[in-house]
Amino acid sequence: MLIVMKPQTAEEKIQGVINYIKERGFDAHVSRGADHTVIGAVGRKVIDKRDIELLDGVSEVIRISSPYKLVSRVFQPEDTIIDVKGVKFGGGHIGMIAGPCSVETYEQVDATAKKLASYGVKVLRGGAFKPRTSPYAFQGLGEEGLKILREVADKYNMLVTSEVMEVNQIPMFLKYVDILQVGARNMQNFNLLKSLGEIRKPVLLKRGLSATIEELLMSAEYIMSGGNREVILCERGIRTFEPITRNTLDISAIPVVQKISHLPIVVDPSHATGLRDKVAPMSKAAVVAGADGLIIEVHNSPETALCDGAQSLCPEEFAELFDELKALASIVKKEF
Amino acid sequence: MLIVMKPQTAEEKIQGVINYIKERGFDAHVSRGADHTVIGAVGRKVIDKRDIELLDGVSEVIRISSPYKLVSRVFQPEDTIIDVKGVKFGGGHIGMIAGPCSVETYEQVDATAKKLASYGVKVLRGGAFKPRTSPYAFQGLGEEGLKILREVADKYNMLVTSEVMEVNQIPMFLKYVDILQVGARNMQNFNLLKSLGEIRKPVLLKRGLSATIEELLMSAEYIMSGGNREVILCERGIRTFEPITRNTLDISAIPVVQKISHLPIVVDPSHATGLRDKVAPMSKAAVVAGADGLIIEVHNSPETALCDGAQSLCPEEFAELFDELKALASIVKKEF
Amino acid sequence: MLIVMKPQTAEEKIQGVINYIKERGFDAHVSRGADHTVIGAVGRKVIDKRDIELLDGVSEVIRISSPYKLVSRVFQPEDTIIDVKGVKFGGGHIGMIAGPCSVETYEQVDATAKKLASYGVKVLRGGAFKPRTSPYAFQGLGEEGLKILREVADKYNMLVTSEVMEVNQIPMFLKYVDILQVGARNMQNFNLLKSLGEIRKPVLLKRGLSATIEELLMSAEYIMSGGNREVILCERGIRTFEPITRNTLDISAIPVVQKISHLPIVVDPSHATGLRDKVAPMSKAAVVAGADGLIIEVHNSPETALCDGAQSLCPEEFAELFDELKALASIVKKEF
Amino acid sequence: MLIVMKPQTAEEKIQGVINYIKERGFDAHVSRGADHTVIGAVGRKVIDKRDIELLDGVSEVIRISSPYKLVSRVFQPEDTIIDVKGVKFGGGHIGMIAGPCSVETYEQVDATAKKLASYGVKVLRGGAFKPRTSPYAFQGLGEEGLKILREVADKYNMLVTSEVMEVNQIPMFLKYVDILQVGARNMQNFNLLKSLGEIRKPVLLKRGLSATIEELLMSAEYIMSGGNREVILCERGIRTFEPITRNTLDISAIPVVQKISHLPIVVDPSHATGLRDKVAPMSKAAVVAGADGLIIEVHNSPETALCDGAQSLCPEEFAELFDELKALASIVKKEF
Repeated sequence: MLIVMKPQTAEEKIQGVINYIKERGFDAHVSRGADHTVIGAVGRKVIDKRDIELLDGVSEVIRISSPYKLVSRVFQPEDTIIDVKGVKFGGGHIGMIAGPCSVETYEQVDATAKKLASYGVKVLRGGAFKPRTSPYAFQGLGEEGLKILREVADKYNMLVTSEVMEVNQIPMFLKYVDILQVGARNMQNFNLLKSLGEIRKPVLLKRGLSATIEELLMSAEYIMSGGNREVILCERGIRTFEPITRNTLDISAIPVVQKISHLPIVVDPSHATGLRDKVAPMSKAAVVAGADGLIIEVHNSPETALCDGAQSLCPEEFAELFDELKALASIVKKEF
Repeated sequence: MLIVMKPQTAEEKIQGVINYIKERGFDAHVSRGADHTVIGAVGRKVIDKRDIELLDGVSEVIRISSPYKLVSRVFQPEDTIIDVKGVKFGGGHIGMIAGPCSVETYEQVDATAKKLASYGVKVLRGGAFKPRTSPYAFQGLGEEGLKILREVADKYNMLVTSEVMEVNQIPMFLKYVDILQVGARNMQNFNLLKSLGEIRKPVLLKRGLSATIEELLMSAEYIMSGGNREVILCERGIRTFEPITRNTLDISAIPVVQKISHLPIVVDPSHATGLRDKVAPMSKAAVVAGADGLIIEVHNSPETALCDGAQSLCPEEFAELFDELKALASIVKKEF
Repeated sequence: MLIVMKPQTAEEKIQGVINYIKERGFDAHVSRGADHTVIGAVGRKVIDKRDIELLDGVSEVIRISSPYKLVSRVFQPEDTIIDVKGVKFGGGHIGMIAGPCSVETYEQVDATAKKLASYGVKVLRGGAFKPRTSPYAFQGLGEEGLKILREVADKYNMLVTSEVMEVNQIPMFLKYVDILQVGARNMQNFNLLKSLGEIRKPVLLKRGLSATIEELLMSAEYIMSGGNREVILCERGIRTFEPITRNTLDISAIPVVQKISHLPIVVDPSHATGLRDKVAPMSKAAVVAGADGLIIEVHNSPETALCDGAQSLCPEEFAELFDELKALASIVKKEF
Repeated sequence: MLIVMKPQTAEEKIQGVINYIKERGFDAHVSRGADHTVIGAVGRKVIDKRDIELLDGVSEVIRISSPYKLVSRVFQPEDTIIDVKGVKFGGGHIGMIAGPCSVETYEQVDATAKKLASYGVKVLRGGAFKPRTSPYAFQGLGEEGLKILREVADKYNMLVTSEVMEVNQIPMFLKYVDILQVGARNMQNFNLLKSLGEIRKPVLLKRGLSATIEELLMSAEYIMSGGNREVILCERGIRTFEPITRNTLDISAIPVVQKISHLPIVVDPSHATGLRDKVAPMSKAAVVAGADGLIIEVHNSPETALCDGAQSLCPEEFAELFDELKALASIVKKEF
């Protein structure tokens, strides 16, 4: 931490700051410049920099040590490759996850999964517990939905991912799913994150609607600090002032995250845009910008979907897109 | 719902839309203008307007019935007054809540509460379970913190409010606190909201960092639809591009909420600005703009606080502010 | 315009609204639903919808006719192709613009342009008048800079684009440049837009830092309504809460604009991210998402650049990227 | 400027950075900590910190000298009081500016000004040149509008303020108005700012829709560095994700600006909210938060206004509000 004093600060105020940080377990290194005296505070304690900013004579306090530990490329320089029973995310491998927004019926999931499997998709997604803004909207089938997903996935030799909303649900999810999703609204549900740190299955952590990249990484740090090293990050659009798209997909988050962290990052173009005809261009953009995976909503009959049909592709649209994505991936030296 | 067709849409496409909505249980009222044909869809079912927007010939779909029911002034025209053992929020009454950010020790809470009680504050706040961005930061004393709050509050004849983070914690909170707080990060933790709908104690619901006012009201609707009518809303700053203040306190949310809803709305100037010297001006602004309450961080020794001391007032600063707030309240015809 | 009345509004209030709009030159079409009466106001006059919202009994007023005329795909269904002396933007053609952020010296521009021309770049960019946040920063060479650009471009058979900041400068720019740029800060400098409507050279109009897509298109409408049909739109990042990138490049704006408007849209990844190592991934993302052009900062010696060197590529990095972009373009059926 | 090196950076890389900054005219002060070596770069030159961030071994570069000079409280500790022919802004004085959004006719301005003058308002506002998003909307009366404002103001012994949009218009404005306004869309029209630095009349500078407080102050610095010391800042709402209000009025900007700068800051609640019934609460909030002035839209017949009538008060509403504001001001020790 660097403490920048105001120009021409009296010596006694400088000494006051030095005493303050020493009392809190820090060493002080003082550097006197032409205008500014700068005090470097070195130590392992946690201190709120705003407290120091309130001390007399202090102009600014700057945190220099990174808040990340386990998620950081300093801790682990090489890419983490999450290998879920042979499906890989990271290190040049792009994982494809597809399926309906919500699980509605066995027939719906079966019809969709059958086609997806035939296109080579290995991971099936589907919501069983749905976070909905209105208490009067469809809230999902619950455990019944998870059972359907598992049964259908086994039939077609696929893996399953679905969103877990609460600590209590974790044991149930461990029975049915291969990758546990944390939704954007729960990115800072810290109790949930801590509990997910104790399990030994991969977690797909979505960026909150208004979460900075630093906050996303700190939430991943919660899971990793509990001992679970298998975290897949997910960019799914941030809230901005632009009203036409539901959210603004932050494609630049992909290379930004990959520079700071070794964790894989996947992209959800369906929730980000909320518009079916924008899913294809944004999927392509994500892949060539370096995404380690995609999670795309596909519904065998989007017009009759109970939830978010407007952003779902029909299987044939998806198949066409998947082919194009494979061609683009090879140009940027990655593969599905 | 109004469905606006594109100019010069062929009659068969119009008929297609009419059939579509009728199949889904809606009545159709057609109005043919010079440029646009508009179809009014009348019914009680829930339908995703984006699905209709994808139909051939449709230009735009406009939701006209309000998503609010129980929270709305249409449902209840007069102000809700939440009366917590004699302390009132709403209907001209401004409730004052004050106390430290985190419960640290019995002595700290006792010293702070003693002074607050002497100034006439009736509700004591304090965090026992702390949502922290970093897993390495102080996470709160847990149940021990709640016990301290209760004990001290009883000693000075005060009420207690504290933040609940999870469904599992609700029974514990019911033992110790008078008002359960839902933090900004949990505003859309729908399982928590549903569970809080089943209790019979007031809930103070904070606006999420990037939640629209409509979303805040929908979250209140979750609690109310469960049967708990005692919801106090709280504006605590929204995330914007301005970096100097931690968040941007949206003072205009006060009159906006009060026009749409009968629920009281309080303001948290401490978390909104994150800066001690901005707490007083923003508290004053909130009161004259019509706030039904304030929740202010006060710490007997802000410099040594384990959390957010930089935004806490010392008791004497608070006392001075409280006097000024009372004078301002009387001019806008309200009272503490 | 649709005027939605509140439920159970008395007949006389409905009549009041009808009279109000008729007095202002509109026809009224009334449709009575179960809950809501809806009045369709049909006419060509401009009226502020908020004025109607203030009338007694009105619940909501909804604009249904599009604010766009000349920029809209309704006005012109097929893509506009801007052909600047053989270099094409739009309709499957991707135009490449490259060059230094600022014109510094003849030698600098010459060294950069020589290499760019050898890679097949046909349009040279460079700032002569620089909009700078601080009055103490380098403000550009002015007309001298334009002369250098012209001279170098002619030497290598290239075209020139540069940013015009003021009405007064237009005659000077017409002497030297082939495409006049309007910077993000001037997107709503309406006097400048009107004056650019009167010239007969292409205008590259950058999206404002916090401009919605609708506002960008309305600014293009200013230019087109003056008679100048050659407008190239430019997405260059919007301001969000994310601090790591300078701005957030809104890649989804590309397909959104292309659905509403026939005008070509190019992308500026250099200003959007402000980070050299993010220029390549974002350029690729833009191309596969459908961009009609790119504008990339290239400097023969980025480390010594007077302005924004940190976001400039060196010529060799650019050459490698350009090759990769051509391969990607062919997969999405477009060409440079 | 502080340059923080990565942990365990080799000595030669540290030396490389030192050489780099020395070549650019800076002195280097090196401080070696346990983890990080920090290099203080001392000098008067302008350098882009991102260029240094790209050097090998550099972790972070931190600007420590303030970008403000003339606008800063370091330069002038006491409040600037702008005294426009006896009407004062700053230093405990609150200036009241009121009038119609647009000048429409002599009669309209006369009727409005007559009442405002009778309530004690001394400064009349009114738009003659209107920045409008659509080229098809009313663009103002131009010079004719300025003449009307001047004539009416002289009749009632008032001052005049109106928005100037372009360098060319400045001489015309100097003939008619007492305070020149710069609108939000022109806050970074640097040529206009420079030209306003050369005149000797007060300038009211509005914060841009998405401008940070630092950017607002830098724009004021442009005017002041030209020699014009009479700058009044104006907060008028920022663009956020909240759709109900037109913009979000950032009340906390008032105390933030007043801490950094000696310049007065006024508030425009009419444009910020865009809603008539929100003007009163936000005006009150601004005054008690410390605003040095208000600029309020008042129209003698808001329902027939050609522009923004929906946010204008009628004279009687204004009179009532003004009385209440005076009472509130006295409690916070200020006066109109």
